[in-house]
Parts: sequence; structure tokens; C-alpha cells
Amino acid sequence: MNYSSINFKEKLARFSEHWSPKIVAQMNDYHFKLAKFQGDFVWHRHADKDEVFIVLEGAMRIDFREGSVDMKEGEMFVVPKGVEHKPFAGRECKIMTVEPAGTINTGDTGGELTAEDNVWI
Amino acid sequence: MNYSSINFKEKLARFSEHWSPKIVAQMNDYHFKLAKFQGDFVWHRHADKDEVFIVLEGAMRIDFREGSVDMKEGEMFVVPKGVEHKPFAGRECKIMTVEPAGTINTGDTGGELTAEDNVWI
Repeated sequence: MNYSSINFKEKLARFSEHWSPKIVAQMNDYHFKLAKFQGDFVWHRHADKDEVFIVLEGAMRIDFREGSVDMKEGEMFVVPKGVEHKPFAGRECKIMTVEPAGTINTGDTGGELTAEDNVWI
Repeated sequence: MNYSSINFKEKLARFSEHWSPKIVAQMNDYHFKLAKFQGDFVWHRHADKDEVFIVLEGAMRIDFREGSVDMKEGEMFVVPKGVEHKPFAGRECKIMTVEPAGTINTGDTGGELTAEDNVWI
């Protein structure tokens, strides 16, 4: 039997909306999600979960209440649990997040940018 | 304060040995590790842990007792817990794995390709 790998470009071509992570893989109780970021997200935090961002294409920034981190293709960053952050992308940026299954994109902030949590592509 | 992202190319330039994963980040109780694969690894399995492979540069194959999966840059695969597998790369392939902290690269097989488990770069 031949198994299939998960191709990021192929998966990213299947959707266009921003700030709407799509699950592409599960590892134990974690999800790998692809998303397209553009503009400002909302300030939020995940009280007890670290969250990983990996930039697949483009560039983005994560703002903290003090300071920020710039990220581009081929880079990752771990936002520590409990730390308020706000992603921002001047132009569309394609990213992968890794986080425990059930993590809500807007954390404990909620609001209209809250995405449905369990969408696979 | 300005934080620093983790740049995969920069980290990969810091070592040359094959089959020797280096930790670049921790997320909760998981490690993100970079490695360079070339040639045949050993058959092994991780009894109770799924393991993720992400190809950053080059191409590789994972053989199973029945079948295989081919992977190239920009692709990932989740090897399910308990499934025997053997990575192979005809030419040097640069990859990232994601797995629970403390995972041994040769699983329950051991042997001379077993890498030290807790090396950060």
C-alpha cells in the first residue's frame, strides 16, 4: 500500500478566507492547522497551552504587550501559555499552527474572528 | 523587547551529522527537532506515540512493513503510534520532527544509531 503525504501548498489552495485555521493532521491529541493571515487579529491568550506558529510563505509579526517578534518563511515561534499576543500580517501570510486539539483561535477573547474549531481539509 | 524567531536554515547550518535530531523548540511537553537524514535508518516503532515528519529540504521515504510514503519539501506525514517504520533518504534530506519530549529516535529498537535525546541547538 502507498500512503500519501500532506502537501501544504495543495492544502492551502483549497481555501482563501483569512484567520480560519483548517486541520490537516492529528498527532496524539494535537492538531496541525493551516491558515492564511492578513491584517490584524485580536489580542488573546491561551491560558494553559503553548502555541506554535510556523511561517510557510510570506511574513508576519506577533505583537506582545511588551515587544514583538518578526517571522518569515522557514521560521517558527512558540507563544508561551498565558501570554497575550496579537498576530499581524501586512500582506497575506500562509502559516501552520500546532496546538492541542480543541484550541480556539481567539483564546479567551472570543468575538467575530473566532473560527469554527474542528474543520479539516 | 524584541523576541527572536527560530530560523530553520540557520539552525540546520550548525550541525552536519546524520540521524542526530537537535531540539529547537519546546511546546508544552513536545519537542520540535531538526535532523539531516541520509541513507537507511533502522526499523523501529514508538509504542504509544504518534510521530510527525516535516520535510524542510530535499526528499525522503518512510517504509512500512507494508507499503511506503514518499515525502518532499513542504510535506508532512504522521506515523501512527505502534507502526513499524524505517526512514530512508537517497540524498541528504533536512527534516523537522515533532514528538513528545523524551522520545528516542530508534524507538524500541535501540542500536548504534540511537541519538542522545536532549540536545538543543
